[in-house]
Amino acid sequence: MARLKGFQKLTRIDDALQKWLNVLQITKPKEETVPLNEALNRVLATDFTAKEDLPRFDKSAVDGYALRAEDTTGASQFNPVTFHLTETEVGSKQARQIWTGNPLPKGANAVVMIENTKKTDDEIEVSVQLATGGNVSKKGEDVKKAEKILETGTRLAPYHLALLAAMGNNSAKVAEKPQIAILATGNELAEVGSTPAGNQIFDSNRVMLIAMCRELGAEPVDLGIVKDDLAEITEKLKTGLRDYDAVITSGGTSVGGLDLVPDAVNNLGTPGVVVHGLALRPAMPTAVAAVDGKPVMILSGNPVAAVIGFEVFGRPLICKMLGMKHAEPRPTVNAVMTRKVAAALGRRTFVRVHVTLKNGEFQAEPVSARGSGAISTMTRGNGFVVVPENREGVKEGEGVMVRLFGEVEDANDV
Amino acid sequence: MARLKGFQKLTRIDDALQKWLNVLQITKPKEETVPLNEALNRVLATDFTAKEDLPRFDKSAVDGYALRAEDTTGASQFNPVTFHLTETEVGSKQARQIWTGNPLPKGANAVVMIENTKKTDDEIEVSVQLATGGNVSKKGEDVKKAEKILETGTRLAPYHLALLAAMGNNSAKVAEKPQIAILATGNELAEVGSTPAGNQIFDSNRVMLIAMCRELGAEPVDLGIVKDDLAEITEKLKTGLRDYDAVITSGGTSVGGLDLVPDAVNNLGTPGVVVHGLALRPAMPTAVAAVDGKPVMILSGNPVAAVIGFEVFGRPLICKMLGMKHAEPRPTVNAVMTRKVAAALGRRTFVRVHVTLKNGEFQAEPVSARGSGAISTMTRGNGFVVVPENREGVKEGEGVMVRLFGEVEDANDV
Repeated sequence: MARLKGFQKLTRIDDALQKWLNVLQITKPKEETVPLNEALNRVLATDFTAKEDLPRFDKSAVDGYALRAEDTTGASQFNPVTFHLTETEVGSKQARQIWTGNPLPKGANAVVMIENTKKTDDEIEVSVQLATGGNVSKKGEDVKKAEKILETGTRLAPYHLALLAAMGNNSAKVAEKPQIAILATGNELAEVGSTPAGNQIFDSNRVMLIAMCRELGAEPVDLGIVKDDLAEITEKLKTGLRDYDAVITSGGTSVGGLDLVPDAVNNLGTPGVVVHGLALRPAMPTAVAAVDGKPVMILSGNPVAAVIGFEVFGRPLICKMLGMKHAEPRPTVNAVMTRKVAAALGRRTFVRVHVTLKNGEFQAEPVSARGSGAISTMTRGNGFVVVPENREGVKEGEGVMVRLFGEVEDANDV
Repeated sequence: MARLKGFQKLTRIDDALQKWLNVLQITKPKEETVPLNEALNRVLATDFTAKEDLPRFDKSAVDGYALRAEDTTGASQFNPVTFHLTETEVGSKQARQIWTGNPLPKGANAVVMIENTKKTDDEIEVSVQLATGGNVSKKGEDVKKAEKILETGTRLAPYHLALLAAMGNNSAKVAEKPQIAILATGNELAEVGSTPAGNQIFDSNRVMLIAMCRELGAEPVDLGIVKDDLAEITEKLKTGLRDYDAVITSGGTSVGGLDLVPDAVNNLGTPGVVVHGLALRPAMPTAVAAVDGKPVMILSGNPVAAVIGFEVFGRPLICKMLGMKHAEPRPTVNAVMTRKVAAALGRRTFVRVHVTLKNGEFQAEPVSARGSGAISTMTRGNGFVVVPENREGVKEGEGVMVRLFGEVEDANDV
């Protein structure tokens, strides 16, 4: 049905997300086992419990001599204590040379650093007093056997891989990458690399959405560009829903007064579109839908609106599909606004800002919106200030939280 | 030559890095052209200048009617102005229906939103006053032709790809990935997946260093594990230096009192090791070297020391090899320390902390170092507090800058 008078009712973001997630059937992701060398940034599909202690044995944390701590009582630079060197078990007043990482020899309970000794033939003088366990990495002090060390839903950083390797694993069980089909719609779109007609623009959203899915650990599938034609759109959506785990479209949320993509989705199954028209700026015409439990995200053709729509719905969706407990947060900083920004009361507003670090303080400069659809507001900015529904804007000098999507320069380094 | 008494002199980090970079021959990286769909996180090898305006033409930013702004003077809800609908050029007191993204028709200079109109047959009533250019995205307002829009050394985020696509590019010239050979040394190391001897540990540094290189956009090459044997180490290093752009080793900086890897590097060419022994905690025994201009980074076998050594030297090295102007900064937050931490005066100390967001304030809790070598201090933490050389520690309640290496949870969300 034609909708010619704008959206009668805008849904708040939190309600919209909840409504959508409620009709989606997102189950625990399928597991796959990948070699550790290919597991970077993948998401753990199982809890990981230590099969043994780490370290596996008491070991020296320094280069020096293993000995009994109690034999060093009273030792000082002015009153060194003499130890006899041994090559085997360490007895009373005996010491055995040891290097970082070596197992502690039997009989010893501490290690004196080489710097605190003086060697003379088969003896050493020790000039410091040690406590039992001094300079020793105790068996299990890093990780105890049976301890749960990594949780399902953890995105694997290099350190997680190191911990898994240290416990002897050469592979990890991770969530399969959800396959997300990306479709751009619009008669006005020209394929990048082609020669556009005078009133055409290059399709830039598809490559961006593909990259955003990939960044979060999904596997994007490119369904290309389709004209503003209900039958063609329906056909493509059908393919996407049949073969992949979710579909994201760009454009066609409000074309020539017709909601082509929402209408096509509604034709394909239930419940169809669950929210269309959001209390969100930009990205008001975003819609979210489900067909037989599979998610469809219908983003605006406006590139910045597509970014914000993806931020609000795509990010939590993909994180959930990967088995994470929460939507993965972006790094966030507390910054001071360098000038005031207006926002729309009753809508959640995403203001693009450029954050810099000046003398230890983060300053957020709004990126002047020469056009709200201008993708350059994203490339010139590095963060969002999210203005809540109950605020008409942000004041100059006000403290804000900025969600970063790019690097922050230290103004003193530049 | 054997070194049995620890390091006589520790070099400050900034000096060490400068000394090292001075002897390296790092030239502008080679360029390669990759399709945009494969360019995510690659680093631009050329400046990028706009070939045309963006938008390519004046276009409507909303759904509504194109008209002449001056005809709306005085229009209000109580005093609407009537416009005659047209399908062609827009004349005085005429309006033409238009949708978001459509080119502005000839004769019009503004667009009234559909919500602010009332349609009756072939006329509309307009109830708001518009300024010239109202609701119009002007040609070139996003990007002006010949404007430099992206700089050499930019790491390509999804938004950069969108901007490149919007200008009609289907590929980008990026820096070739530097190939970095990774070698682990140590008789104590067992290959992950094998059955270790009683005094052996699994090699966890190699998989971690490989991932850390990959994360920054380098191409790691695995040279495996080599025993503590000067000839074997020399052979492997020779291969690494001959075939790849840099070599990173782990272990063997101080084995049984011998500096096997540094000695091997020194045998291979000049200047060899330029700094060995750093005013850094952990990671004091790190060494940096160059052989005929090629970088060699000699990291400690201790996993946390390897992380810190890589953070201090590997990160700036790889960024430089990729043609970036500065080492890419980690996201950083201002946080409050929840308890005091001691640091070593005269050394730069990297304290691992776990940052959480509590009611809008970031709190940094030091990760108790059950063992300083414990890789679990990295997996349990999410950031570093870097204590400078002139400080003996950080006080409870002190404000600190935290370099994040993991996600920060919002305590209110959990």
